[in-house]
Amino acid sequence: MNREDCDLVIVGAGPAALTAAIYAGREGLKTLVLEKQVIGGQVATIDQIDNYPGFSQGIDGLSLAQNLEMQARRFGAIIRFAEVKGIDRTENNIKVTLDNGAEVMARAGLIATGSTYRKLDIPGEAGYYGRGVHYCATCDGALYKDKELVTIGGANSAVQEALFLAKFASHITMLVRSWIKADQILKDQLKEAVDNGKISLMEGWRPVEIVGDEEGVTGVKTVSKDESKTVACDGIFVFAGQTPNTDFLHGSAIELTDGGLIKVDSDLKTSLPGVWAAGDVRENATKQIVAAAGDGAKVAMQIGKYLQEGDK
Amino acid sequence: MNREDCDLVIVGAGPAALTAAIYAGREGLKTLVLEKQVIGGQVATIDQIDNYPGFSQGIDGLSLAQNLEMQARRFGAIIRFAEVKGIDRTENNIKVTLDNGAEVMARAGLIATGSTYRKLDIPGEAGYYGRGVHYCATCDGALYKDKELVTIGGANSAVQEALFLAKFASHITMLVRSWIKADQILKDQLKEAVDNGKISLMEGWRPVEIVGDEEGVTGVKTVSKDESKTVACDGIFVFAGQTPNTDFLHGSAIELTDGGLIKVDSDLKTSLPGVWAAGDVRENATKQIVAAAGDGAKVAMQIGKYLQEGDK
Repeated sequence: MNREDCDLVIVGAGPAALTAAIYAGREGLKTLVLEKQVIGGQVATIDQIDNYPGFSQGIDGLSLAQNLEMQARRFGAIIRFAEVKGIDRTENNIKVTLDNGAEVMARAGLIATGSTYRKLDIPGEAGYYGRGVHYCATCDGALYKDKELVTIGGANSAVQEALFLAKFASHITMLVRSWIKADQILKDQLKEAVDNGKISLMEGWRPVEIVGDEEGVTGVKTVSKDESKTVACDGIFVFAGQTPNTDFLHGSAIELTDGGLIKVDSDLKTSLPGVWAAGDVRENATKQIVAAAGDGAKVAMQIGKYLQEGDK
Repeated sequence: MNREDCDLVIVGAGPAALTAAIYAGREGLKTLVLEKQVIGGQVATIDQIDNYPGFSQGIDGLSLAQNLEMQARRFGAIIRFAEVKGIDRTENNIKVTLDNGAEVMARAGLIATGSTYRKLDIPGEAGYYGRGVHYCATCDGALYKDKELVTIGGANSAVQEALFLAKFASHITMLVRSWIKADQILKDQLKEAVDNGKISLMEGWRPVEIVGDEEGVTGVKTVSKDESKTVACDGIFVFAGQTPNTDFLHGSAIELTDGGLIKVDSDLKTSLPGVWAAGDVRENATKQIVAAAGDGAKVAMQIGKYLQEGDK
C-alpha cells in the first residue's frame, strides 16, 4: 500500500489551507496539501474580489487562487489531487486515508475544506453564477447600487442579508418558500423596510428557473400553490445557507457541531490531538477570504510551535 | 471647537485598520481613519513581505500599505493625520479626542494602533533596519539560510525564535545581557543546540553598536563587565519584545493587560461598549499581517451588525 510521510498534512486547498502551507513551508515543515477538486476552493470561481485587502482595484478569483498556489509551492508545499476518506491518530502520528487506499502519515494535521453555498438546483443557476446569481451579500452587494434584486430564503441570515442589500439596491423582492422565520428584531426591521416600499415580500413562492440574456440575469420564474409568475430583476442572491465540507469526518474522532462545522478551541485545535481546523469549515468563522487566510497563518504558527515543543 | 461625526472611527491605519475600513466602507458606513504617523503602520517600513498570501513573489511593504490605503479610499474611507488623546462614551456615541482639541463623534469605534518592536537604541540599528537588522524571525528568518546570525535577548520568546532561526542559519550567537530566563523545555532544547554547536551563548554581554558596510550588517560590537569584542555576522535579530501602542488608553474605560495589550472577548469587543480592537494591539494576536487583516474583516462585520441591530 502506498504511504507518504510528511510533517503537516493539509486537507483542502483554499485560502486557509494555502496560507497555512505558505507559513509551514517557510518554517521548514514538509507540507502536503490534499485537494479533491479545485485549487483555491470557492475563491477560484469568483469573478471579481474587491474586499481582499492588498489589491486596490480588486482581483479575479482565479488569479488570487493561482497566486496562493504559486506562493505555497514557492515555499515547498506539495499539492496533490486526492479525496480524503478519513483522518485518525496512530500512537505518534496523524493518519489520513485517501480514496485510492493510500495513506498519509503526518506529525500534525489541518482541516481546511471550507464550505459550499447551498444551491437551489434550478435551471439557470449555474449558468448565471457570478453574472447575476450570487450567494454572498458582503462580497457582491455593492455591485447592485440602485438595481432591482431578488433574494431567496427566509431564515435569520436571509433577512439580515436582504436588509444589508437594501442599502444598495433600489428595491428587493424576497422570495420565501414558506414564511419568514427570523428573530423579532429582524422581523421589525424587515417590516419597516416593507412599509417604506424598499422590500417586497413574496411568502409561499418558490423559484423554479433563473432567466436572462447575454448580459446576465433578467428575472426569476416562481410558482406558488396556484399561480406562476416571473419577477424581473438585475440580480438574485440565494441565502439558503452553507454546507461545511465535513462529510468525510462523520464517524471520526473530530467533533462537529449540529450544523456539521468542526468544533475548535480558541487556538483552533479540534478534538483530535494534533489536528487543527481553519477557515469556513470551523465553527464561528468570519467566512471571508482574508479571515480564512488569517486562520491559516494562526494555525501554522501554532502547529510549528507544537511540533517544536510538543503539546503542553 | 471642531467636531466631526461618522459611523465608525478607526484609530490607527495598519492592515487591521485599513481592512476594517474597506469592509465598513463597502457596508455604506461613513468611516474615519485616524493615523498619527505612517499609513500602513509597521508594514510600510518592511523591505520585502513574502508571507502575505496573494503575492506569489512577495511585495514590498510600502506598496502593500499603499494598496491598502487606495482600497480603503476607493470604498469611501476618510483618512486623517491626527493623534488620538482619549476615547470615551457619551450616552449614545463614542467620543474620540484629538491632540488639537477637536472631537470625533462616532456610532462605533475600533482601535487598531498595533505595536512597536522594542529597539536597542544603539548606533547602526536604525540605519541597517531591513538590511541585516530584524525583529521578526517568522517574517525574515528564511533570508538567512546557511548564514551566521546574532540574536539579542534571553526571554522565552528570544529562545523560541533563536531555535526557530537555527533551522535556517549555519550558526547563531545569542547575546544575553544577563542570563537565559526561559521555560525548562526551551532551556533543554537550547542546551541541545548548544551541544550540537548550532548555537553559542554569550551571557552577560550586551550590544553597543551594529556595524556594517554598503551591503548591510557585518557584525555587532558587544561589551561585558570587563571586555569588549565584535561578533561577526550576516544578520541580527532583536528579540526585546513589543510595546503595544496603547499609551493613550491609560485612564480610559478600556481595560488593558499588564503588558498593555487591549483585553477583548471572542468577538474582539473591548470593555468599552461600542468599541472593538483588532490586530497586534489586542491580546492573543497572531502578530502577522494577514491575521491582523483577518481581524479587521471580522470586527467590521461585527460592527456592521451592531449598528444595524444594536447590542444584544
